[in-house]
Amino acid sequence: MSAPSLDAQPINLAALQSRIEEVLHGFLDAKTRAAQDLTMPADVPTVLQDFLTAGGKRLRPLLCVLGWHAAGGQGDDTAVVRTAAALEMFHAFCLIHDDIMDSSVTRRGRPTVHRTLADQHGHDHLGTSAAILIGDMALAWSDELLHTAGHPPHRLTALRQVIDVMRQEVIYGQYLDLMTPLGPITDHEAALQVIRFKTAKYTVERPLHCGAVLAGAEPEVHIALSRYALPLGEAFQLRDDLLGIYGHPDHTGKPVLDDLREGKRTVLIVLAAQRADTAQRKLLDTLLGSPDLDHDGAARIRTVLDATGARATVEDMIHARRVQALTALDAVPYPQPAAAALRHLAARAVERTS
Amino acid sequence: MSAPSLDAQPINLAALQSRIEEVLHGFLDAKTRAAQDLTMPADVPTVLQDFLTAGGKRLRPLLCVLGWHAAGGQGDDTAVVRTAAALEMFHAFCLIHDDIMDSSVTRRGRPTVHRTLADQHGHDHLGTSAAILIGDMALAWSDELLHTAGHPPHRLTALRQVIDVMRQEVIYGQYLDLMTPLGPITDHEAALQVIRFKTAKYTVERPLHCGAVLAGAEPEVHIALSRYALPLGEAFQLRDDLLGIYGHPDHTGKPVLDDLREGKRTVLIVLAAQRADTAQRKLLDTLLGSPDLDHDGAARIRTVLDATGARATVEDMIHARRVQALTALDAVPYPQPAAAALRHLAARAVERTS
Repeated sequence: MSAPSLDAQPINLAALQSRIEEVLHGFLDAKTRAAQDLTMPADVPTVLQDFLTAGGKRLRPLLCVLGWHAAGGQGDDTAVVRTAAALEMFHAFCLIHDDIMDSSVTRRGRPTVHRTLADQHGHDHLGTSAAILIGDMALAWSDELLHTAGHPPHRLTALRQVIDVMRQEVIYGQYLDLMTPLGPITDHEAALQVIRFKTAKYTVERPLHCGAVLAGAEPEVHIALSRYALPLGEAFQLRDDLLGIYGHPDHTGKPVLDDLREGKRTVLIVLAAQRADTAQRKLLDTLLGSPDLDHDGAARIRTVLDATGARATVEDMIHARRVQALTALDAVPYPQPAAAALRHLAARAVERTS
Repeated sequence: MSAPSLDAQPINLAALQSRIEEVLHGFLDAKTRAAQDLTMPADVPTVLQDFLTAGGKRLRPLLCVLGWHAAGGQGDDTAVVRTAAALEMFHAFCLIHDDIMDSSVTRRGRPTVHRTLADQHGHDHLGTSAAILIGDMALAWSDELLHTAGHPPHRLTALRQVIDVMRQEVIYGQYLDLMTPLGPITDHEAALQVIRFKTAKYTVERPLHCGAVLAGAEPEVHIALSRYALPLGEAFQLRDDLLGIYGHPDHTGKPVLDDLREGKRTVLIVLAAQRADTAQRKLLDTLLGSPDLDHDGAARIRTVLDATGARATVEDMIHARRVQALTALDAVPYPQPAAAALRHLAARAVERTS
């Protein structure tokens, strides 16, 4: 971490995002050509290419590059941007497998990978199987992106440690998420633990650490970044939970009924269940997780979320966490452009409508 | 590669296998304890522990260590054995996901991971989802085993290149395997390509290369090992295909009807379809891939495989490939203990009944 430099150039997040996209698309274009030479199915890279083109906020890769800047990284950032792209490829793996587990039909306004392949081949199980493999390949290729980024071996070794921890955390987080519907609907601690592992660490903390490690950051920098990352990551997920129920499908790219039909045990739902009277609780128990839930049923659930004050409490929680993250940011003399960009991303993560 | 040394100690494969098991079980025991500290679900490591305890030939990890010996590796082999264990952990990932794709009910004489979890929770989709995640974790942990093996950074970098290629090959091979039933049943080249990518390279060639790279082998050594590995790997898979149809479930650990019900396009099946007369072809088209196939139907398919000479041809192909592999072995002055062990494994891989 260097002292703040007042005349440093601001970080252009849009330009950075374009460079990340270029790496991803260049890598997959090369894989498409290589598949032809190997007489291997070009569906695998092209399906991934389509998936990545369909959208995504690129929050994780941007945070990775900002972690590098925050930790005083200077000079050529080519290898850092490629590492950032590797995180996005890893995220594609997570989402493709998550969509199978959640039986989601739509993602980013398009059919999910397993549904696309099922429709293409007229066979549900084949679609799921092919999507499992395409997810597996995204994971394998995220590693290839990392290992061909041009990091010096000792840096790569340090980076791999962060990546290995991150992968374990997100897989454990998803496993917990899968199993929470088997426990009591009022388990607030379980819902928060899912948020911490599946989002706060995975989406914000570890990407920042990946970047920081590439700048050779000391442990104190990692700890300082965590103080910003964990509350922000929780706020991000709490916003996501609200958007999953109150958001507009045209903005979020996914049907507003998905989370409710799946019976997701979000903090929002847990708070409502804890505070519900007998009639409200009965309504939640009956409608949540029902695969046939319609818009009328969803509206009745939203009434309970509003009436119990659960929605307002979650808004308060988001606000408190955002303040906590920004306070942690101000407490450390990060280089000014990195601090400004982290402040901007914090706003984008919690104020968004998609 | 050093000149043959007549007084070198033979390699004790059974002792080597025990050391590989110890690494795997020690690693997963530590993960089980760590899960408690993290308040994470201990099912993930314990399910993997049970899966690995249930059996397996450990061919890939043994070949990894033999690749190191063949390339002249000497001295402390601790990191090599840990790398070998990482290959077995990766293989657990492959098998757990394959069993979901093949809808297999039994593996190694026990219910498959997705069936175990489905029965445990009384919910098929949840069982599949949990098994996808446990497979994903096996992949993540195979990397953790690699990265904590204690390799010097430049060796690890070279090893990662082999691993990244291997993972792409096996995932592509499995994707091809999944899609072949959509093509003509007489496509011999497609069936051989699946064998090459899914087995010959993955099961034999790349494990040997992983070991060789850790001994700092020159490219010629890799090429020489491939000349042994690829025919042996094809022979191994051809034997597997025969065992899938003619083997005894008590030995193979899987029901004898699985491959036929799934309609797998093995070389054996393709040869029979190419040579079948109209009545035989009709029988194959009707019965192969039928989920209700019974033992009587299987016996009728076997009659066609015998009558067309397909079974005998596959036996001939196995024999020819074994000879080819052993000839390639004899052409190179590998250290004598490594050559003896590779010869022994070749026999074990093609003469087996399980």
